[in-house]
Amino acid sequence: MADKYTSLVSRGWGRDVAKRLGLPQPVELRRYRPGEAILSGPALLIGSGPAAEAIASALSSWGIEARREGAADAAAPRAADDGARSPKLGAIVLVLDGIERPEDLSAPLLAAGRALRSLAPSGRVITLSRRASTQDEPSLGAARQGVEGALRSLARELRAGATGNGILLAEDVPVDAPSVLGALRFLLSGRSAFVDGQFLTVGTSAGGLPADPDRPLEGKVAVVTGAARNIGAAIAKTLARDGAKVIAVDIPAAGESLAQVANDVRGTALQLDITRRDAGERILEHALGRHGRLDVVVHNAGITRDKLLANMDAAKWDSVIDVNIAAQLRINEALLASEHFGDRAHIVSVSSTSGIAGNRGQTNYAASKAGVIGMVRSTAARLAARGGTANAVAPGFIETEMTARMPFATREVARRLNSLQQGGRPQDVAEAIAFLASDGASGISGNVLRVCGQNWMGQ
Amino acid sequence: MADKYTSLVSRGWGRDVAKRLGLPQPVELRRYRPGEAILSGPALLIGSGPAAEAIASALSSWGIEARREGAADAAAPRAADDGARSPKLGAIVLVLDGIERPEDLSAPLLAAGRALRSLAPSGRVITLSRRASTQDEPSLGAARQGVEGALRSLARELRAGATGNGILLAEDVPVDAPSVLGALRFLLSGRSAFVDGQFLTVGTSAGGLPADPDRPLEGKVAVVTGAARNIGAAIAKTLARDGAKVIAVDIPAAGESLAQVANDVRGTALQLDITRRDAGERILEHALGRHGRLDVVVHNAGITRDKLLANMDAAKWDSVIDVNIAAQLRINEALLASEHFGDRAHIVSVSSTSGIAGNRGQTNYAASKAGVIGMVRSTAARLAARGGTANAVAPGFIETEMTARMPFATREVARRLNSLQQGGRPQDVAEAIAFLASDGASGISGNVLRVCGQNWMGQ
Repeated sequence: MADKYTSLVSRGWGRDVAKRLGLPQPVELRRYRPGEAILSGPALLIGSGPAAEAIASALSSWGIEARREGAADAAAPRAADDGARSPKLGAIVLVLDGIERPEDLSAPLLAAGRALRSLAPSGRVITLSRRASTQDEPSLGAARQGVEGALRSLARELRAGATGNGILLAEDVPVDAPSVLGALRFLLSGRSAFVDGQFLTVGTSAGGLPADPDRPLEGKVAVVTGAARNIGAAIAKTLARDGAKVIAVDIPAAGESLAQVANDVRGTALQLDITRRDAGERILEHALGRHGRLDVVVHNAGITRDKLLANMDAAKWDSVIDVNIAAQLRINEALLASEHFGDRAHIVSVSSTSGIAGNRGQTNYAASKAGVIGMVRSTAARLAARGGTANAVAPGFIETEMTARMPFATREVARRLNSLQQGGRPQDVAEAIAFLASDGASGISGNVLRVCGQNWMGQ
Repeated sequence: MADKYTSLVSRGWGRDVAKRLGLPQPVELRRYRPGEAILSGPALLIGSGPAAEAIASALSSWGIEARREGAADAAAPRAADDGARSPKLGAIVLVLDGIERPEDLSAPLLAAGRALRSLAPSGRVITLSRRASTQDEPSLGAARQGVEGALRSLARELRAGATGNGILLAEDVPVDAPSVLGALRFLLSGRSAFVDGQFLTVGTSAGGLPADPDRPLEGKVAVVTGAARNIGAAIAKTLARDGAKVIAVDIPAAGESLAQVANDVRGTALQLDITRRDAGERILEHALGRHGRLDVVVHNAGITRDKLLANMDAAKWDSVIDVNIAAQLRINEALLASEHFGDRAHIVSVSSTSGIAGNRGQTNYAASKAGVIGMVRSTAARLAARGGTANAVAPGFIETEMTARMPFATREVARRLNSLQQGGRPQDVAEAIAFLASDGASGISGNVLRVCGQNWMGQ
């Protein structure tokens, strides 16, 4: 495998193409392990004022040395000099909540640029800024939206597993709101290994940080559909690792694998076809009967029935819609109708980059996964009054049994077409879900978080 | 050029990669010429009810034969049979404004699928549906958002220059509102040759269709910045062709080319550095003094100063921000402060797919072009009260003098990474701008219309 690949990309036109496509040596990503330090090195904090102070003290409280570089002294290339003498930077954090005009981006971004060579492998660049609104003055809207263009470009320039992501704050959310700090911690840590070029929007100040940051789901009961294998099994294990009691749901045919997963996570198994009309009631019955509560629902179960639309039949189309979106809608409706669910509940659905960008041969699948995005946004509005959230994750190319069966060349190309030049792992999707399922993310709702290594495919 | 390319993609691993990347034979796109028929063949209209009736009569009034296929008889593969016997379909139009649940997408999409083999080269697939809102019931929001996933996938399956695009209607906009019909006509015609996989949102019922559809800008005065060359010159010529009196603006150094363009379009030339603090006032003075009015402003002037952020200096960063966004903000501010501008005015700014997706080596450029998007959204809100609009177009890979100077392999790959497997032409960008500058697009504001052939690069 390496031979063919290496020979193609090591000379002539193939090399040029490879360079343009960004195909070369991907690195092993830093991934989260409970108890480990959040970062391997200090964080450079760019920005000044109370917001930067608040972030500095949050970093300190997490055991991260925060080095300060006020945007004001951007002319002095201090950071780069520091980097040459001392441990590599674990992260660069830009506090940009005070920008008012596009011109204000210059000093902090150039300061970040000077520090980039000091960034450690699997380092992080994170922006904190305010979400652009149509109500902004045009210059303010331009400055705020400008952050997204700069960050997404910057993320494409990072190498060696480093990522760039941003946090967008709604107008009235303070920079030290629990979910802002929760998002920052998630993005700094190895939990976000395969999240790149993305923005999390914090819409409210709701929520609180967990007592034990390694057990953010302690005391919660979580149901995971499609839990017997692949990404679903990883989700079950990750939620359990984070402290949740997990109800693993899958179709009866998955029986043995399902029992194994439930056993591994010391949870319970529920054999259930989620397309049954009473699936929501049965989940609730199981949760209340066996565990006395239900806090988190992860809609992971999904199928593909790929065909070009010209060759698609109704059976393929309808089964994908039924499993991937209609079942989720019915289950949510049943849950939200219950008095036993909804107060501070977290729903997380698995969408797909195909639901955002579309994908050849997947009209039905993309319709269902775009549908998940529409559902999540509407459901978020409904849950807000009860302190609950609904979010989606949109995985890109994830290494699973399914992708392992793809033809070699297709897989090899597909897994490289992102800024991290590799496929993600089921674990990476699971970490994003676990974060969105936690009370530390209570201010985040209606978001679609891509877990795609900044996959090229977009709208 | 064809030899190297052909040999690489015609065998072994290279062929597999090419197939996966979708690199093969691009076709010449159907492009608009005044006086020509909108479509080369009949349109298949999928959907029923008053909305479909309204679209059918609009098509007829444009000289397009509208064949009907009610979504109800989706089981009968009538369209495909018809296609085999009769002229190829110029378009397939799906009227989906009545969908309520994700399941409702099945019949119309499968009907479209059966008709795809009958679609002519450079044919069109167009959806009309309602924009998803957080206020929708979850199942309605899912259905509406689902259209986007299905259409974007479908667009990736089309070949031979055919495109797929959609129109999203706000809740209270009737399907026969002027801007809906204006958008439909634009998307059907060769004006939208390089627009693919995109959605236009019609937010209001404002506007009216032009008396002469080949002269939609008759009687309007339009200013175009950066008009001396490339895309700017194409914009000037296209607006003039559509009936506008054009003020061609460029820097004094562009003098001769600028005079040539102004002469070609029978307009006037204004030598002006748009970064001057009084640029807006000078534009207004010229427009009112020479032409007595100003209706349309096209912010096209822009520069690149590409460098990886680690190597970026303040001069490069600041000059790009100043020309590409700060100047536009200042000019708009001056114009909007004037009583002589703003009533039914149309502002169109040139953004870039880099401003949406980010691009390696273009942190400054992407910040400025994302800034344009933020500016346009805020400005749209301000102009709404006066019946004006502000929109952006985001070109992808366009064949210009600039891209002609790119290294061969880089250019060859970049121009293929979209569903149409080719670069666009300056004319394609100009057509989108001309549409957004017309009163037929008065219900469309705050949109960002990509002109990118469904370029892969996205958020």
